[in-house]
Amino acid sequence: MTIKAFVFDAYGTLYDVHSVAEMIETAFPGRGNYITQVWRLKQLEYSWLRSMMGRYEDFAAVSRESLVYTLGTLGLTADERLIAALMDRYDRLDPYPDAREALEALSGYRLAILSNGSPAMLEALVSNTGLDRIEMAISVDAKGVYKPDPRAYELVEERLGVKPDEVVFVSSNGFDIAGAKAFGFRVARIERTTAGALRDELAGAGTIDPAMMFRALRSQLETLGFQPDDVIASLRELRAIAGA
Amino acid sequence: MTIKAFVFDAYGTLYDVHSVAEMIETAFPGRGNYITQVWRLKQLEYSWLRSMMGRYEDFAAVSRESLVYTLGTLGLTADERLIAALMDRYDRLDPYPDAREALEALSGYRLAILSNGSPAMLEALVSNTGLDRIEMAISVDAKGVYKPDPRAYELVEERLGVKPDEVVFVSSNGFDIAGAKAFGFRVARIERTTAGALRDELAGAGTIDPAMMFRALRSQLETLGFQPDDVIASLRELRAIAGA
Repeated sequence: MTIKAFVFDAYGTLYDVHSVAEMIETAFPGRGNYITQVWRLKQLEYSWLRSMMGRYEDFAAVSRESLVYTLGTLGLTADERLIAALMDRYDRLDPYPDAREALEALSGYRLAILSNGSPAMLEALVSNTGLDRIEMAISVDAKGVYKPDPRAYELVEERLGVKPDEVVFVSSNGFDIAGAKAFGFRVARIERTTAGALRDELAGAGTIDPAMMFRALRSQLETLGFQPDDVIASLRELRAIAGA
Repeated sequence: MTIKAFVFDAYGTLYDVHSVAEMIETAFPGRGNYITQVWRLKQLEYSWLRSMMGRYEDFAAVSRESLVYTLGTLGLTADERLIAALMDRYDRLDPYPDAREALEALSGYRLAILSNGSPAMLEALVSNTGLDRIEMAISVDAKGVYKPDPRAYELVEERLGVKPDEVVFVSSNGFDIAGAKAFGFRVARIERTTAGALRDELAGAGTIDPAMMFRALRSQLETLGFQPDDVIASLRELRAIAGA
């Protein structure tokens, strides 16, 4: 089947969320690491749980709720100015260094984002960071469920008019990779963290800290019965996939 | 509305899973804590993700997949004998010390379990541990989804013939509490870990280890918009709820 479009996950795939962690460490010295990890885990959990419960709220709301939970474990209350600053930081994330050049190289293909982010978050992100080759940033919001619910992935055909087997879906997130593959896309995993490096680190560690544990939770392919078609170390490798 | 039945979550609510952790530490000295925490997190994640993806496998399969993932982060392969021994341990968990007496005290009420466990796991557990007052152990398996999908909670009315508002649902798990309350049960949270004790521990800790992080992920009420009607420190308090 001919590939017509590349569709990208946003956070952790095209856009680096590292700068959010830096902002949290500045606000909570010595506890930034813990807060960042627990927040991210709860953010994912709440997106899944609200989908299952049929109680969707948009990703800005889920992000806020999960941050309130996280700060609560330390006996802290979320400060409205800090929440606003963190959400604003999400609107100004840097693309990964390989993103711009890799997208430019995919000439002749339609390029889009499919993200859990709310429409307002995605609009701000794309307009602030100027990845001009992205034709459309599609939010799961229209379906009222998060990835990996198959209804979220249906939006690609509905908005772009391309069939699932005409799409290469690109993500660094294990649950998203499994969901996209189960749905019927050709799937490329961009390996932002490598399982091998983590194994070496875990083997040498006396104690395992939360950051290592968090990376362990996301370091390898999920054992959910769906494997990606391609595993790439850089987005630049996508051009070869298109040509194959 | 008159209360007619008490329905209990199994793992972590009526039955203590601590002995599984001990078996893992024996098998992997110095890494038992890490493996136990990551396994439990992945077990939950996979139950939610498979529900969302419409790709249900039973809890024995999900437990196995998530253990394979966890050992893989350390470069270890799951040994079939160890997996069999761990799953067998799940069939022989001890009830919490307050369980038997508390159930006996609830005379005149129908008592049941609603659990993510597979039918085979639950049958073995109840028959091995002899909580005779439990009339029925209902597995979500019949619906092909896990809690907190509302279809899982529908099984209580279908099997026991009692309406949601005639049921006190008892759980220690935040996601289950939110799901049961959203569904329409009266909900009692049994507080097996207390947020206050954890906060004190986190405040005094130089570094935060994975066990503390795991407890943080489960230590307090989820900020999902649904609060339990009652919070209890012991199952013995249920009798007072029934009488209220």
